[in-house]
Amino acid sequence: MAQHTRSAKRIAGAAAQTPRPLSSKAAGICGRPFIHSLLAQPRGRPSAHRRCAQPIISASADGDFETAVFDKESVTMAGVAESIVRGGRDKLTLLPKAFAGIRQVGVIGWGSQGPAQAQNLKESLEAAGMGGDVKVVVGLREGSSSAAEAEGCGFSKAEGTLGEVYDVIAGSDLVMLLISDAAQAKLYPRILAAMKPGATLGLSHGFLLGVMTNDGVDFRPDINVVLVAPKGMGPSVRQLYQQGKDVNGAGINCSFAVHQDFTGTATDIALGWAIAIGAPFAFRTTLESEYKSDIYGERCILLGAVHGIVESLFRRYTSEGMSPEDAFNRSVESITGPISRTISTKGMLALYGSLDAAGKKTFEKAYSASYKAALDICLEVYDEVSSGSEIQSVIRRCARLDEFPMATIDQTYMWQVGKKVRAQRVEADIPLDPFTAGVYVAVMMATVEVLRRNGHPYSEICNESIIEAVDSLNPYMHARGVAFMVDNCSHTARLGSRKWYPRFMAALDEQAYVKIDNEEPVDEELLQNFFNSPVHGALATCSEMRPPVDIFVGGEGSDVGVGMGAARVEFKSTAVS
Amino acid sequence: MAQHTRSAKRIAGAAAQTPRPLSSKAAGICGRPFIHSLLAQPRGRPSAHRRCAQPIISASADGDFETAVFDKESVTMAGVAESIVRGGRDKLTLLPKAFAGIRQVGVIGWGSQGPAQAQNLKESLEAAGMGGDVKVVVGLREGSSSAAEAEGCGFSKAEGTLGEVYDVIAGSDLVMLLISDAAQAKLYPRILAAMKPGATLGLSHGFLLGVMTNDGVDFRPDINVVLVAPKGMGPSVRQLYQQGKDVNGAGINCSFAVHQDFTGTATDIALGWAIAIGAPFAFRTTLESEYKSDIYGERCILLGAVHGIVESLFRRYTSEGMSPEDAFNRSVESITGPISRTISTKGMLALYGSLDAAGKKTFEKAYSASYKAALDICLEVYDEVSSGSEIQSVIRRCARLDEFPMATIDQTYMWQVGKKVRAQRVEADIPLDPFTAGVYVAVMMATVEVLRRNGHPYSEICNESIIEAVDSLNPYMHARGVAFMVDNCSHTARLGSRKWYPRFMAALDEQAYVKIDNEEPVDEELLQNFFNSPVHGALATCSEMRPPVDIFVGGEGSDVGVGMGAARVEFKSTAVS
Repeated sequence: MAQHTRSAKRIAGAAAQTPRPLSSKAAGICGRPFIHSLLAQPRGRPSAHRRCAQPIISASADGDFETAVFDKESVTMAGVAESIVRGGRDKLTLLPKAFAGIRQVGVIGWGSQGPAQAQNLKESLEAAGMGGDVKVVVGLREGSSSAAEAEGCGFSKAEGTLGEVYDVIAGSDLVMLLISDAAQAKLYPRILAAMKPGATLGLSHGFLLGVMTNDGVDFRPDINVVLVAPKGMGPSVRQLYQQGKDVNGAGINCSFAVHQDFTGTATDIALGWAIAIGAPFAFRTTLESEYKSDIYGERCILLGAVHGIVESLFRRYTSEGMSPEDAFNRSVESITGPISRTISTKGMLALYGSLDAAGKKTFEKAYSASYKAALDICLEVYDEVSSGSEIQSVIRRCARLDEFPMATIDQTYMWQVGKKVRAQRVEADIPLDPFTAGVYVAVMMATVEVLRRNGHPYSEICNESIIEAVDSLNPYMHARGVAFMVDNCSHTARLGSRKWYPRFMAALDEQAYVKIDNEEPVDEELLQNFFNSPVHGALATCSEMRPPVDIFVGGEGSDVGVGMGAARVEFKSTAVS
Repeated sequence: MAQHTRSAKRIAGAAAQTPRPLSSKAAGICGRPFIHSLLAQPRGRPSAHRRCAQPIISASADGDFETAVFDKESVTMAGVAESIVRGGRDKLTLLPKAFAGIRQVGVIGWGSQGPAQAQNLKESLEAAGMGGDVKVVVGLREGSSSAAEAEGCGFSKAEGTLGEVYDVIAGSDLVMLLISDAAQAKLYPRILAAMKPGATLGLSHGFLLGVMTNDGVDFRPDINVVLVAPKGMGPSVRQLYQQGKDVNGAGINCSFAVHQDFTGTATDIALGWAIAIGAPFAFRTTLESEYKSDIYGERCILLGAVHGIVESLFRRYTSEGMSPEDAFNRSVESITGPISRTISTKGMLALYGSLDAAGKKTFEKAYSASYKAALDICLEVYDEVSSGSEIQSVIRRCARLDEFPMATIDQTYMWQVGKKVRAQRVEADIPLDPFTAGVYVAVMMATVEVLRRNGHPYSEICNESIIEAVDSLNPYMHARGVAFMVDNCSHTARLGSRKWYPRFMAALDEQAYVKIDNEEPVDEELLQNFFNSPVHGALATCSEMRPPVDIFVGGEGSDVGVGMGAARVEFKSTAVS
């Protein structure tokens, strides 16, 4: 989405209101990239497919990108070429070039992503020999209760690596804004105003663009605006980065976007950031495409839909006479255990292939009956996200949090049973239930289909519908139940999951299971579409680009590590899901 | 809401684009009411509390109103004086004066409200001796499948009382627009353009204002815009009107609004309409207040919440070991039978009072645990409606109806059990379950509370939260289950009920019932607020203003009467819920 084509926009941030620097006129002229400078000298980048405008914006989702620092690779996803950049420990040597001119990185917020990204970045810069040149400074509210934890992770006021939010913003050349969505929505005018001209605003979620679009406001033109969105929760970003020290290429995939390129170097700053926090590969998106797919995905199979699925399956299984323990095993445990593991390592077709003949029939019935019921809700979710209604509803709900804190979701009978089941779990004995598999994969494919209809690139589709589910989120439900998964995510995700899971639950109850009970015939065309979907190939391509990794998430009572938000089910500021 | 204070609005309807009539300047001048004229002579009405503007708009919900024809009464609702007009068969003699100058009334659409209002109006005009002076003409699409039914009710092409939509609109002095919300949203520019200058646009739902607000469009200024909103489904409007022939004052209450008064006679036209279709009393609202409370109410206790309540209760009762039949009796049957009957005739406090000591304790526990969980969702619903998001989502969902028809909601096990239970029902044996009563009344009071917080008048609150539920809607669920109630309503209502019932269900499951199972203490303050709520007095005032009536709705297999939409679970065009 080209921001500069919109009319009737205001510009956020005080600097935009002040007289423009002398050289500002140059920003309107397409030129060759210049070496990054902190002086407010706007530069354009050459671009074959668009006319240069002021500010320089490159936000096309399907557009290619240029990097002066990293190796760009072309990979084929579902028959379409996409450009990506590969990460790994061996790429850290490129950081000095990517971060040229950056003396201070401010990591604002200490929620889910903050601790992970701040520590990963710091360690990567040290590994690249830049520890002395670039300071990573954590910015927190005065009196923030997170200060002690940040200090425990090696950030301190004494060393100038821990400071007050706006001081840190004003002093940073790259501002990684990892505060909660709600806080971003509220504070962005002041945050933008505090930034140095020529600095880079870094987001890990395009949410803020959604908010500013609703508000009819543009980013101030004299800064870069980039995004690096890890496809997993902060604790996973940290954990897999640590694995990556031994297994080169382990880490959480990131999408990246360059929304506004004031200095001509924004792409390499974003790529450097992605590689520094451990992305095995980074793929291109836009802020708009990212926030839509992200907010959509977490309401669907990533959080909301999977919650709805297991609630409806548990109820169905027990009402059929299964014991509560068996029902939990065949719903939640089956999904978070063997189903997720198989999809993660071998894909959805292999999951189907692993079933015996009777299991395949059951899978087919469940898939066929569930797909359209889920697709209906997925389409509605996408519409709500795309229209801005969902973001507005999140902001309104956040304003009521004092009177109505978010309710607990794991105190019902089912999740009490789950606690018992987990305590006695023998991992190898968890059943792969074919009915559960059919329902789960149908809802996953419905999540995929809506992103496909809306033109998202397959790298994004795979990550937002499949990889993040099986590699990053389901392991949390496996460890400690649904609240441990959902409530380790952002407010936006937590509210959205609560809002939509009952819809998926009801759709399965009153449509899918009614079809099955009425013995309606299997829809062969739906099944063929599943078998022949290009998403399987795209997912395989994604898998090839990183080594297999295992996320261990501590079970009940275990300590999952200081500095990892995952240890706390409830925290105050979080960033992405 | 004063429409004329908005900026950047377009005017809907071609007439606004044509040169203004010579006398148009007069519309800007406050004057005394003139006798209604079909010439395009705009007249103002005197108004103590607002400055006159062009067009004349009187849309304040709390404002008083002037009538030159009817007796205005002041009633005290929750300590606040509200002006109302009483109906009854003896008031029909005032219709010639109220409808002075009206030669043709076009009733557009034949859904839920169309058949009821067209027939009631026609019979009332005949009773007033105006049968020869004012023609009631039904307007339908060419080739509409409803034509035969309209003819069966005495409207015919031969007599000029059945015609094509736009012909009828162009020929009518009062256009009662009773087509579906979705059709209104789509067709309003052409409908408005077809109207005669000086004619009156009559709505039975303020929905169109919500749509036009979203679209940034105003009504053309040279017409009256009024609303008469019966507080019940069309079939109830017809049935109680017929009872009213014997029991003077039987009928469905109406709210009325004058949104735009071009002729100075709009108030009396609206009141005449309300009395003619059988309102025992009519109370003042605005289009905005009406559509918000209406769309909100049907998502809450009127449809969505009551559906969610009974689903969650049935599940809870069966999981506790109750037989499915007992569980249905103690959830659905209890609410649609004794609970609704008691509230309808004696109010909510009498319902509580009718319980024994143990029952009262159970009621208190259930009430206390459920109220806040429901209030949270009710607040969210109101926000969504108020912001326009809900209307936008209805319009988007309607555009997908071909690919995704609305799912059936009564094919699950619970509703199959219900069919059996109803077949064997002995009305007098239906239990009044105190737990069910506590949950139901808590959600009803939460629905009330949000309307109160948002400044709706108590007459509207009582109707949209209580009277319409127990007198008009629950009888339909009593007769044939949840789909017969929900799917006899407008698309807006049907979609909204489907969207929100799972939320109420989940909120009760994971908050209210968890509190009860954890034996959390009863919140005494909540209970005192219930006992002392002014809504009980307001409800009593409403009850005094009309005789007790009974809605009989035919059970399974019965014919509820030609011309009554209720006989058809699915119909194409409906108007209000």
